[in-house]
Amino acid sequence: MEEKLTEISTLGEFGLIDHVTKGFELKNESTVKGVGDDCAVMHYPDTEVLVSTDLLLEGIHFDLTYVPLKHLGYKAVAVNLSDIYAMNGTPRQITVSLGISKRFAVEHIEQLYSGIRLACEIYGIDLVGGDTTSSRQGLVISITAIGDAPKEKIATRSGAHPNDLICVSGDLGAAYMGLQLLEREKVASAGQIDFTPDFAGKEYLIERQLKPEPRRDIVQNLDKAGIIPTSMIDISDGLSSELLHICGKSHVGCRIYEDRIPIDYQTAVMAEELGMNLVTAALNGGEDYELLFTVPLHLHEQVESIPGIKIIGHVTEEKLGCAMITRDGNEMQLRAQGFNHLGKNEE
Amino acid sequence: MEEKLTEISTLGEFGLIDHVTKGFELKNESTVKGVGDDCAVMHYPDTEVLVSTDLLLEGIHFDLTYVPLKHLGYKAVAVNLSDIYAMNGTPRQITVSLGISKRFAVEHIEQLYSGIRLACEIYGIDLVGGDTTSSRQGLVISITAIGDAPKEKIATRSGAHPNDLICVSGDLGAAYMGLQLLEREKVASAGQIDFTPDFAGKEYLIERQLKPEPRRDIVQNLDKAGIIPTSMIDISDGLSSELLHICGKSHVGCRIYEDRIPIDYQTAVMAEELGMNLVTAALNGGEDYELLFTVPLHLHEQVESIPGIKIIGHVTEEKLGCAMITRDGNEMQLRAQGFNHLGKNEE
Repeated sequence: MEEKLTEISTLGEFGLIDHVTKGFELKNESTVKGVGDDCAVMHYPDTEVLVSTDLLLEGIHFDLTYVPLKHLGYKAVAVNLSDIYAMNGTPRQITVSLGISKRFAVEHIEQLYSGIRLACEIYGIDLVGGDTTSSRQGLVISITAIGDAPKEKIATRSGAHPNDLICVSGDLGAAYMGLQLLEREKVASAGQIDFTPDFAGKEYLIERQLKPEPRRDIVQNLDKAGIIPTSMIDISDGLSSELLHICGKSHVGCRIYEDRIPIDYQTAVMAEELGMNLVTAALNGGEDYELLFTVPLHLHEQVESIPGIKIIGHVTEEKLGCAMITRDGNEMQLRAQGFNHLGKNEE
Repeated sequence: MEEKLTEISTLGEFGLIDHVTKGFELKNESTVKGVGDDCAVMHYPDTEVLVSTDLLLEGIHFDLTYVPLKHLGYKAVAVNLSDIYAMNGTPRQITVSLGISKRFAVEHIEQLYSGIRLACEIYGIDLVGGDTTSSRQGLVISITAIGDAPKEKIATRSGAHPNDLICVSGDLGAAYMGLQLLEREKVASAGQIDFTPDFAGKEYLIERQLKPEPRRDIVQNLDKAGIIPTSMIDISDGLSSELLHICGKSHVGCRIYEDRIPIDYQTAVMAEELGMNLVTAALNGGEDYELLFTVPLHLHEQVESIPGIKIIGHVTEEKLGCAMITRDGNEMQLRAQGFNHLGKNEE
């Protein structure tokens, strides 16, 4: 039975902000002033300032029939932090803007913020501002992440050179398979009240979809090893799409090897169950939030010794194009067929 | 007749971003890297960094039946810059995130961006990033503004002291009256094809509603006069609400004088026409985007000599509360009854 819910109008905009941001403590030296003025104020005298922003819309980016609000809050923060790590930086602050429709109560926003708060605690982030308003059509979440990096350590998309090694963290395709699984169980549950979804043996896929973790550990371990990637990007739209971004911006080509693409066992089982091509899922699935980066060839041993990093290929001259060498030794041209919320993909 | 429109799917997300951000040149020394990577990169070695964000939703904040997309783009930027000026800072960069529903074509987004571009040109702002996605919920606009201010010049909401003078720029209530006028003509036009709205003699009200200008000039003139406000806020939710913010954060009270509140002639005429209380409109109307600030008493002459600034009252001890002295000499307690998109106002 649903517990008693509190209408948001009993608190109003400012009351709601005060209520949900209470207990967020400022942790970063760079944060001068947080929530509660016209602007947040920060101080970054010795580093570059990094800013990234994401807009998440109900019905496009998330489906509240199977995404718990706490997980949604956590993920909304995580995907923004991922962009800062993808520049080889450290996230420090976020602003959170919400559009809230009438079907949400104070308790729902509390759940959302409990996820936001957890992500802030785990990743050492200060919540410094935002905007809260009503919405006529579902939940709208806009988060901006602010961070820093010393100038000489910033890894953009445009620094890859021929012969660099192409590396990827973690494994790919699992979040996409998790989404397929959640959608399948949603369809199966339609109209049933006591439906228990069947996730046995697929917990990893669900976790990858609902609670992705930005790869702070990879950025930190690269730093410890003294490695600055020549280029880096996070994999939100699928490996193919992101690799084409790096190659396009760096004016290089690439060769990656099908048999080196890291894929988890559960991802493979699920692809089999659904009759999907596993490599397509890994190349184009999206929402992995792993890091894709390039390092000079001579760092081969150092980078390979870092846990969770796999070398999947190398950078070539631009004229050679971008291709994957399949298991049977053929070349398959890479195309961006990943997540795209606005129709046709670029190619 | 509507000209031929281009479906957004023909460009895709990345194609659309490239298309509409083409020709935005980077103007600020603090901008290191703009659109096109995981993050924007900025450099602010000598100043504090200011960040502010606003979320604008169709059906809540704007009505496209009478708001031209170019004006909407301009206003969306303007209201964000206003927050940076309200800290006595200088805006330098913005990120623009859009959620676009299916009824919008490439040409519509071009119109929106022509307004964004114009505001960026006039106020010297670099567009450095954003996020673009489809929307099921009409047009969603989320803008984050980034700027700077020397530490010693930042004006927060919390620095007002008893005996400080309370100052306001421009005039109040006109944007609200413009909104009433636009709504009236929308109702009058319902179902008519050749309807010509009657705005004669009310152009100022329409302009204040559709094309507000953030008060960079006031911030610059205060600086030239060597004046640092003890507190400052921009008036987006109405004079009453903003004054209560300053008094609350500064732990002070205030007295303002009804006969000193600056109101334009057109605002007064319109209030009369609509049978509305003029002072209520000026106190609670919202969307003025004027600056409300306090200065030490001894700066009376200097501040009064700056064009467009009016002294409307003074700060008191907290225990005296916040009140307006009416024309007939009575004290009326100030209450926040301004714009609030989430139900009940704080009091």
